[in-house]
Amino acid sequence: MLIPTLRKVGAEAEMASHRLMLRAGMIRQLAAGVYTYLPLAHRTLYKVEQVVREEMNRIGAQEILMPALNPSELWRETGRWDTYGPELITLQDRHERDFLLGPTHEEVITDLLRNEVNSYKRLPMSLYQIQTKYRDERRPRSGLLRGREFLMKDAYTFHADRETLDQAYQGMYHAYERIFTRLGLDFRAVEADSGAIGGTENHEFMVLADSGEDTLTLCDSCDYAANIETARVGGHEGEKSRPVAEEISTVEKVSTPKASTIEQVTKMLDISPHRLMKSLLFDVDGEPVLVLVRGDHEANEVKVKHALDADQCELADEAVVQRVTGAPSGFAGPVGLKEKVRIIADHAVRDLFDAVTGANEADAHLLHVTPERDFQVDHFADVRTVQEGDPCPHCGGTLRFSRGIEVGHVFKLGTKYSEAMQATFLDREGKEQPLIMGCYGIGISRLAAAIIEQHHDDNGITWPLTAAPFAVHLIAVNMKDENQARLAEQLYGQLVQNGLEVLFDDRQERAGVKFKDSDLIGIPLRITVGSKAAEEVVEYKIRRSGESGHLSAQELSNQLPELLKQVDG
Amino acid sequence: MLIPTLRKVGAEAEMASHRLMLRAGMIRQLAAGVYTYLPLAHRTLYKVEQVVREEMNRIGAQEILMPALNPSELWRETGRWDTYGPELITLQDRHERDFLLGPTHEEVITDLLRNEVNSYKRLPMSLYQIQTKYRDERRPRSGLLRGREFLMKDAYTFHADRETLDQAYQGMYHAYERIFTRLGLDFRAVEADSGAIGGTENHEFMVLADSGEDTLTLCDSCDYAANIETARVGGHEGEKSRPVAEEISTVEKVSTPKASTIEQVTKMLDISPHRLMKSLLFDVDGEPVLVLVRGDHEANEVKVKHALDADQCELADEAVVQRVTGAPSGFAGPVGLKEKVRIIADHAVRDLFDAVTGANEADAHLLHVTPERDFQVDHFADVRTVQEGDPCPHCGGTLRFSRGIEVGHVFKLGTKYSEAMQATFLDREGKEQPLIMGCYGIGISRLAAAIIEQHHDDNGITWPLTAAPFAVHLIAVNMKDENQARLAEQLYGQLVQNGLEVLFDDRQERAGVKFKDSDLIGIPLRITVGSKAAEEVVEYKIRRSGESGHLSAQELSNQLPELLKQVDG
Repeated sequence: MLIPTLRKVGAEAEMASHRLMLRAGMIRQLAAGVYTYLPLAHRTLYKVEQVVREEMNRIGAQEILMPALNPSELWRETGRWDTYGPELITLQDRHERDFLLGPTHEEVITDLLRNEVNSYKRLPMSLYQIQTKYRDERRPRSGLLRGREFLMKDAYTFHADRETLDQAYQGMYHAYERIFTRLGLDFRAVEADSGAIGGTENHEFMVLADSGEDTLTLCDSCDYAANIETARVGGHEGEKSRPVAEEISTVEKVSTPKASTIEQVTKMLDISPHRLMKSLLFDVDGEPVLVLVRGDHEANEVKVKHALDADQCELADEAVVQRVTGAPSGFAGPVGLKEKVRIIADHAVRDLFDAVTGANEADAHLLHVTPERDFQVDHFADVRTVQEGDPCPHCGGTLRFSRGIEVGHVFKLGTKYSEAMQATFLDREGKEQPLIMGCYGIGISRLAAAIIEQHHDDNGITWPLTAAPFAVHLIAVNMKDENQARLAEQLYGQLVQNGLEVLFDDRQERAGVKFKDSDLIGIPLRITVGSKAAEEVVEYKIRRSGESGHLSAQELSNQLPELLKQVDG
Repeated sequence: MLIPTLRKVGAEAEMASHRLMLRAGMIRQLAAGVYTYLPLAHRTLYKVEQVVREEMNRIGAQEILMPALNPSELWRETGRWDTYGPELITLQDRHERDFLLGPTHEEVITDLLRNEVNSYKRLPMSLYQIQTKYRDERRPRSGLLRGREFLMKDAYTFHADRETLDQAYQGMYHAYERIFTRLGLDFRAVEADSGAIGGTENHEFMVLADSGEDTLTLCDSCDYAANIETARVGGHEGEKSRPVAEEISTVEKVSTPKASTIEQVTKMLDISPHRLMKSLLFDVDGEPVLVLVRGDHEANEVKVKHALDADQCELADEAVVQRVTGAPSGFAGPVGLKEKVRIIADHAVRDLFDAVTGANEADAHLLHVTPERDFQVDHFADVRTVQEGDPCPHCGGTLRFSRGIEVGHVFKLGTKYSEAMQATFLDREGKEQPLIMGCYGIGISRLAAAIIEQHHDDNGITWPLTAAPFAVHLIAVNMKDENQARLAEQLYGQLVQNGLEVLFDDRQERAGVKFKDSDLIGIPLRITVGSKAAEEVVEYKIRRSGESGHLSAQELSNQLPELLKQVDG
């Protein structure tokens, strides 16, 4: 069997899963972000696929297979041919027609359904595929966690109404919970931003791992969980500004030469950052909007966008800042703007009496600025990035941060694609309506790597039984010893006959090499045939817990079901 | 379930499998030669894959998965980057590095093995994958029989010696026989040319079908079978030329103005074509070679190439013909050449006493030309294309032609790739040797189509059980009838519980529509719940034989195993 284990790998493999999959002889890189899956990896991928397949079939999703080669025409209909960016791999065929290698299949499946399903009677419909996808990452890294060619399960549901979309979404959500649970993962479903795919409600499924590149926000009291990009801050619902205390002085301008950052201002004026009111000018769908957050908080573009129900939102450029505030960046404030703009303030700004803001004048700030008294806020909203320790929006508990790896994503797409592609159906009244859609992805190859991120120790991988390439690792310490060879061969036959997947190490290697490889590969249960073979006694060892003991060959067959139940403990 | 059956399809779908897969709602075209597999097709492909997988695993081949995205560097090492031609789909990544979409994986796997296997101790090794392949056919057609994106099983074996290659080749050959037999196919393994992949011994597995684009040569007495491109002609082994009869006149030149083709010459001289000796000048690895065949035979480039153990062989261009023969094409002959060249003659030329040949002079031919007397032949060989009725090279029986679809190919590659890529191992003596290779392919998606080519009738597909999307098609004639609905639901539950794959047609459609769709889709066994539902009686019908009868619901469960045994009859 081709399991080319390695003692060492290059320093570029930083993530545990990347390092261990290389070392355990599971994968080899063919090009940056492009991997060959060797037999052990293939077996794990196959098991992961089967778990996904079973849970998809269980909720009535039908398996299909769409091509990786997508004609550009469909992607031009939705505009993504131009907007998807350099991650889209494109090519021309021999007749110079444009194609792309699908990074996702909304266009192809929407095209299929607009041709084949025209009536509400055929809805809802749920389809999925397990297929190879392509994304030309700028810096592919982390092994299977971020590749350029990778395996995905993508599902799409189509509906005549929002109710069945909600049901399908819930069904997928629970199927995803079952999949990740069966694969032995500690995960959270978090509220997330919809990003480039578009749509409304959506959740990411995150495997908790310190090595993950995403930051999750989790409540320590309830089950609230969100991606840091969209996590809401609690404790502000229905809140009103307190009346302004009469003793607050009137606004006063002070000179703050060259102090354009929070650090410089707080140092120069000897105040703490939470006394400062940060004023940022955003370009929201072409209109300048002033966003106010407390000095120790960060404004969050995604939240600003959502608060204003906008399509585009980014920091305004310097020319706009100059025009609206009359000053360079770093000196903006809500009092004395040169141009009337909408002012959106974070909830925390309500309580910012007697604050410091920019003076809309170079090298100057204002003291004693107070909302409602000195300027009007058009809209209070949650527009800042959550911080550890903030209150939970659901229960008021305390929010904590955690690192995670995104392994799944469920989206309510709505009619974004069906409208762009005129994918319609006739409703009960015979009226043409756009199909309502949901889409649901799981990164199959990434999932295999995420399992390793959560299940490994200093010696190697500690596979959960459901994803392990084999259930049992049978080692004959010395195949030249007649008793050992005989007993090992006999056990191998028995175990396989009992339907177990057994990796049998009958190599002529030193015992130390065999055990080291075994720990590295991480098969859940190891059976060693060694010096006690003459007495028909073997040793078992549970890879994860390290628990071990001796058993007669006969006891082994009886104990095996029990032992296999313990391997994930 | 998404089974969008059609009553009619466009005229461009000429092949039965193409037409029926479209009509049965199995596939839809996304672009020329690029198809989406809908649920029924996916189920069939999955079954075909599982049969292939089982037989590959049985002979100890290990499943892996290689990327479709191949870096150009490896293909430059073997030269195929430049020689593969326009069927190779190429692209550049965002860093403008050249990639291709693999039409086959010799380069990638040879690269893998040269890095991971360095000793004879690790050999032989057998690896396979089931993976999507790409070939930019000029005119993709025939549905899944010739696509641009298609599913393949490709296996590769690596050896330290020829003996284990021979064993592996035999093992694969027999595994292929089992696979095609299990899938209910009438097929022949035929000797074939190695084509662009290179190598020595190889066989194609052909499914017999009148619609096939390959011509097979089969012996009517023994099991000899070959592709027409390479089929040998028997009856010449050990043959010697007969002594030249004394009464044959000496060579005589006659005028044959403008008669440069066989038809023109035979007409002008009023002789039958088999009295003519056709003389063709080939360019063989850069050297001009005169090839002689009888006037009613066709010279075969592949055979000429093999007879001379050459790499390249094609008709010489006009300039070379002029130089060597002193005449334009159509007037060449073995007597009186201007330049000395090798003369290769087909065995049938031995007996061509008193023949007509070109005179190596425009508008002139020679009469009474006789081999050995008037010119010397350097080498007699089998260099003509076989004709129906020719003798079998094995048993002397009669060769017949038949049409077929190539579904598999086994090759002894030898060291073609390992030498080009310096993929070596250390042998027992510690000496570096190139890996000896074999490669073995099965077109998975093409196989699904080939099964239909062999198994269909006027009403639709007649799946063999092993490849059928479902085993049983359960039809409730009228779901509004309480008895029918109840009995059908009950049977469905029972059948599924017994582990059977059941397609349940519970649509509100007319009975005629349901039966037509059922015949079209071609599930092997149909169970109809109709007017006798009140008496708990159902009808069964075997799709292929048309055999039908009535059974009580209870008898059905007992009879089912027996019925399923009969469906392929």
